Amino acid sequence: MIRRLVAEGLGTALLLVSVIGSGVMGASLAQGNVAITLLANAIATGCMLYVIIAVLGPISGAHFNPAVSLAFALRGRMPMRDMLGYIAAQIVGGIIGVLVTHLMFELPVWQWSMTLHRTGGAQWLSEMIATFGLLMVIFGGLKARAEAVPTLVALYITGAYWFTASTSFANPAVTIARGFSDTFAGINPAHIPAFIVAQLVAVGIGHFALKALFDEQ
Amino acid sequence: MIRRLVAEGLGTALLLVSVIGSGVMGASLAQGNVAITLLANAIATGCMLYVIIAVLGPISGAHFNPAVSLAFALRGRMPMRDMLGYIAAQIVGGIIGVLVTHLMFELPVWQWSMTLHRTGGAQWLSEMIATFGLLMVIFGGLKARAEAVPTLVALYITGAYWFTASTSFANPAVTIARGFSDTFAGINPAHIPAFIVAQLVAVGIGHFALKALFDEQ
Amino acid sequence: MIRRLVAEGLGTALLLVSVIGSGVMGASLAQGNVAITLLANAIATGCMLYVIIAVLGPISGAHFNPAVSLAFALRGRMPMRDMLGYIAAQIVGGIIGVLVTHLMFELPVWQWSMTLHRTGGAQWLSEMIATFGLLMVIFGGLKARAEAVPTLVALYITGAYWFTASTSFANPAVTIARGFSDTFAGINPAHIPAFIVAQLVAVGIGHFALKALFDEQ
Amino acid sequence: MIRRLVAEGLGTALLLVSVIGSGVMGASLAQGNVAITLLANAIATGCMLYVIIAVLGPISGAHFNPAVSLAFALRGRMPMRDMLGYIAAQIVGGIIGVLVTHLMFELPVWQWSMTLHRTGGAQWLSEMIATFGLLMVIFGGLKARAEAVPTLVALYITGAYWFTASTSFANPAVTIARGFSDTFAGINPAHIPAFIVAQLVAVGIGHFALKALFDEQ
Repeated sequence: MIRRLVAEGLGTALLLVSVIGSGVMGASLAQGNVAITLLANAIATGCMLYVIIAVLGPISGAHFNPAVSLAFALRGRMPMRDMLGYIAAQIVGGIIGVLVTHLMFELPVWQWSMTLHRTGGAQWLSEMIATFGLLMVIFGGLKARAEAVPTLVALYITGAYWFTASTSFANPAVTIARGFSDTFAGINPAHIPAFIVAQLVAVGIGHFALKALFDEQ
Repeated sequence: MIRRLVAEGLGTALLLVSVIGSGVMGASLAQGNVAITLLANAIATGCMLYVIIAVLGPISGAHFNPAVSLAFALRGRMPMRDMLGYIAAQIVGGIIGVLVTHLMFELPVWQWSMTLHRTGGAQWLSEMIATFGLLMVIFGGLKARAEAVPTLVALYITGAYWFTASTSFANPAVTIARGFSDTFAGINPAHIPAFIVAQLVAVGIGHFALKALFDEQ
Repeated sequence: MIRRLVAEGLGTALLLVSVIGSGVMGASLAQGNVAITLLANAIATGCMLYVIIAVLGPISGAHFNPAVSLAFALRGRMPMRDMLGYIAAQIVGGIIGVLVTHLMFELPVWQWSMTLHRTGGAQWLSEMIATFGLLMVIFGGLKARAEAVPTLVALYITGAYWFTASTSFANPAVTIARGFSDTFAGINPAHIPAFIVAQLVAVGIGHFALKALFDEQ
Repeated sequence: MIRRLVAEGLGTALLLVSVIGSGVMGASLAQGNVAITLLANAIATGCMLYVIIAVLGPISGAHFNPAVSLAFALRGRMPMRDMLGYIAAQIVGGIIGVLVTHLMFELPVWQWSMTLHRTGGAQWLSEMIATFGLLMVIFGGLKARAEAVPTLVALYITGAYWFTASTSFANPAVTIARGFSDTFAGINPAHIPAFIVAQLVAVGIGHFALKALFDEQ
């Protein structure tokens, strides 16, 4: 179990390194063209997701996301106790990933995001759709072609940076960790709870809708 | 059958979310550099196509495109009745996808595209080539390496955004739905019928040419 | 044999559509930022290469390149007669692809490229390296993992647009066809012969070097 | 053994062609938008890595990196003597790759990089993380899905260009070779030793941490 928790924490830390780091690098080089920064952000995150899911999947299942662990628990595929351990490892790992990224880029280690635009009904709808889509990709992917799940999740998130208005956080641990970074990918801590509620609502809807769609028993 | 129609409708809705959403996001961030917007559009659409074809393919075959359903019916691989149901689900799903995207981006839900440049003989030739190429990819792909069809279609469309003058609609349901959005990816409703005619002509040409090329019985 | 020649001609035509079309589209949208145009060019060409090699490979072997057909013939894997037919189909197909692209983009159908920079020793060295690398990828790929050849060639060329000074023509039929387009991807007809000589020199060097490297009998 | 050394030298040379060449091309075309240059750099390097690992892997194992050869030797999977030969071939190959790239782009063949920003604790931390991640990807990948190692390394480095502050050299032979180029991807020779120390520290940490994580015997 320790090894599984280490894998979840390490993977989530690396995921945040990719999200925060590529945002910092992109913003510093793109001469204010935010689309190019977002492109770097999306590509780097997608690359990292493929890597950590493929490499760490055999150890822990490669959730790196409390919404995913909860969805597995709701389906009875994961004991509640394990789920709690996973979620703790993901949150801690994610925050460590943010702090390490700040060190790499010579930024203040502890920060709070001051962004103002990640709130409101449209953003929350966006997070619901992003999270529902992610669960569809994971559970549909596991049924249709399990070996392609790293590719599926990586491509889904790379695209979702662009086609959702919130750039698809879709992950409570990532959302919390991004509160600790006043950089391109940050989110104001005051806006975190509503994002997480939206993500959890999508887990609830996805639980029933996807079981019906993919005919799971 | 209900499940198959839901899969076709959901997949087409998600396809439109990716097309319209990434166009809106790209246009709002690219400082007027349309090439960067189109790059975001092409990458996001390609990512989504891989995902929905891989995940929903085992349920409905993952057409998401009346031209494709018609081509299967012409080859006798799909009853006419099923084809009509598929086409209805695709059109309805596509429009829902556009409306939901407008909600996510806080835009007026109902819109009509005012674009002026998606018409004329060169655009129609472009749609014919785009649709013919798509059918070649699908039917050739099913014969040559069926498991690669999600990759083939995704890469073909990502490229075709750039190498056809019309950015490759190549899909009557997508064409109709894009009439409902006065954003980057929109098409003036008055110009939709000619696009669909061009796409259907390509289905006709492709029916005979591709059967000969791939030696189908 | 007719079907194989049609496949070679059609594939080479589509390859040129992707090269010329994405160059025109990119140049018209990128506000003079040539790096963005080249990015579109590289991505669109790579996407098309994957598609035509995967889909048409089972019919003709998917050469689409006289240098490749010659290399197969030198290795005794293709009769000289077939090689000549292939090369004719590739050249004719390539030119048709250019003309059709001009029609799609409402440009004069017949053009001659006026570019001035595709000449000189550095460019020719560049073509030698580009062609040698392509042959290494094909013959090494066929030996190491034959099913990955479409991916290998697509990624190699996408990268080679950037890491060779000539943007990697590496293909006599493509070189000739690009002489017929006074657009982003064109080459002055006066500079074509030297490019082709450089490509053929690389075939010669590759013949012996790659046989030794990959230990072919 | 000669063939293996040639493969290591050739592969490392081609890797440097992709790193230096795409940097030169990108910088010359991107109108000063460094993010676009880095994007070209990252994509071209990733494409090349996939190609050389897939094609040359069956011959030499496709290390192209003294840190990787050392890690294999530490695990007892490679004799010390072979390791020394590999490292020599990689260093020589890398330098040749840089010189050839200069020839292709009509630049002075012999250069020393004058960059000033690739030094300091944050950069060294960055190299440690980059190298540790690379080893995790390789050894975890070999255990989880060996056939995906070319994809894993290519995507990891493409992303790591963005999410590490040093753009991920992660390779002593590449670091040395990049000292010979006063272009976009260069590194001041005075800053090379500290980079290599950081990379070797990561090999040491990785040796124990990754054995525990992946439960190697």
